[in-house]
Amino acid sequence: MTKRRNFIKKSSLGLLAGVSTIGCATAKTNVVSSKESVMPAGVPKDLTILFQGDSITDGGRDRGAYYANNGSGLGGGYVKDIAFNLLGTHPTKNIKIYNRGISGHKVPQLDARWDDDCLNLKPDLMSLMIGVNDYWHTLDWNYKGTAQSYNDGLRGLLDRTFSALPNLKLIMLEPFAVAGGSAITAAWNRDFTPYREIARNIATEYKATLIPTHTLFQDALKEAPVSYWCPDGVHPSLAGSHLMANAWLDAFNSVYA
Amino acid sequence: MTKRRNFIKKSSLGLLAGVSTIGCATAKTNVVSSKESVMPAGVPKDLTILFQGDSITDGGRDRGAYYANNGSGLGGGYVKDIAFNLLGTHPTKNIKIYNRGISGHKVPQLDARWDDDCLNLKPDLMSLMIGVNDYWHTLDWNYKGTAQSYNDGLRGLLDRTFSALPNLKLIMLEPFAVAGGSAITAAWNRDFTPYREIARNIATEYKATLIPTHTLFQDALKEAPVSYWCPDGVHPSLAGSHLMANAWLDAFNSVYA
Repeated sequence: MTKRRNFIKKSSLGLLAGVSTIGCATAKTNVVSSKESVMPAGVPKDLTILFQGDSITDGGRDRGAYYANNGSGLGGGYVKDIAFNLLGTHPTKNIKIYNRGISGHKVPQLDARWDDDCLNLKPDLMSLMIGVNDYWHTLDWNYKGTAQSYNDGLRGLLDRTFSALPNLKLIMLEPFAVAGGSAITAAWNRDFTPYREIARNIATEYKATLIPTHTLFQDALKEAPVSYWCPDGVHPSLAGSHLMANAWLDAFNSVYA
Repeated sequence: MTKRRNFIKKSSLGLLAGVSTIGCATAKTNVVSSKESVMPAGVPKDLTILFQGDSITDGGRDRGAYYANNGSGLGGGYVKDIAFNLLGTHPTKNIKIYNRGISGHKVPQLDARWDDDCLNLKPDLMSLMIGVNDYWHTLDWNYKGTAQSYNDGLRGLLDRTFSALPNLKLIMLEPFAVAGGSAITAAWNRDFTPYREIARNIATEYKATLIPTHTLFQDALKEAPVSYWCPDGVHPSLAGSHLMANAWLDAFNSVYA
């Protein structure tokens, strides 16, 4: 995919002289990079995709609209952007997309609802982003969890998941906190960083495809301020959601290349 | 744009042997075609974009969230898909996007709220899709309008608009009814067709960029049934919304090439 992306990027530049491109995101991606214009070859039929996480994934979804591919049920965040793309560009694949992110949730709350909201849905691919509240709620909700309990809990959750669903493919989004956001104090840089490292390490160990969201947003700040991408540093704007969705679609395409 | 798109399409095929592409949409576009991966050169700074229309544009938006670029205020339909893309890929342009589509509306209702919901917003670009209810409500709401009154009303609305905003750029989406949809009876083919023709003719006369949505959906039916794209024939699914959004982004890129 990287090879092809770079090829297109160069071709585009050659044809559209004077168009400014924006160096951004990770080394592999770009703020203005697009979803792939052809579907990857390996997307199987009847693919079930589950998005799990907290408010960023929830995106204000209607939790009563819990069937797959329901517009209201998918919320209004990065999951919605991804769903538009996957469903619009894979009409013959019978893809089913579920969003089960719930605002405010941490690892223990995912664990408590994991039968209903993961195992029983039997996803082929799970996309997981969890961890910001595991730290945040220690600041203002009197939550007693630690980086160690986050590490242990997340590993336990994934062990349980792969035990029930040994063929599951996993995309993990690193939890992030965008510097300068209205909710982000100096303490975050010191005390939240270990949570991000834990998520990245776990992604590697469990052979997940990792989306380095923290780097994605840090690089995007070169183009526009935090208020444009993610005003409070935690909840992305539409623009920030699109950054995440584009990176996710790259990850999806690499999983099913 | 067309030249570049075709170039990329061919390049992609050359690199990804065995990937099936889907012939669809208009001659220029394709179901799996993507938004452009670089921004068009001519997008000005501080661009204000207004989406106007009926329920398809409304997309269940929160009408109290009427400020530009509000996720809830933009609804959950094709406008949202477009907003993700435009805001995510043009971070330095200060683009403002308003959605003022309202479910059930016809030309006379747009006319009645045009000062508040168009002229006072001073859009640089307006995207307009109106007409399905101008026909539909003659069937089951005892509405007395005709194709002639639709024609006259829409021209009057646009004359009023360009008189106040002479430099406005206009994208018009043809109103559509997807054959086989649960709300589409045989009468539609005979009696709604003139409305579509009127919209297309007006688009040409007023130098709008026309999106041939009817053709877009008819061609998409070669890949998946109407239930996938637009179950009742009027209100698109997420997949159908993405078809429209992709065609709209092509139109946007041609306007600001």
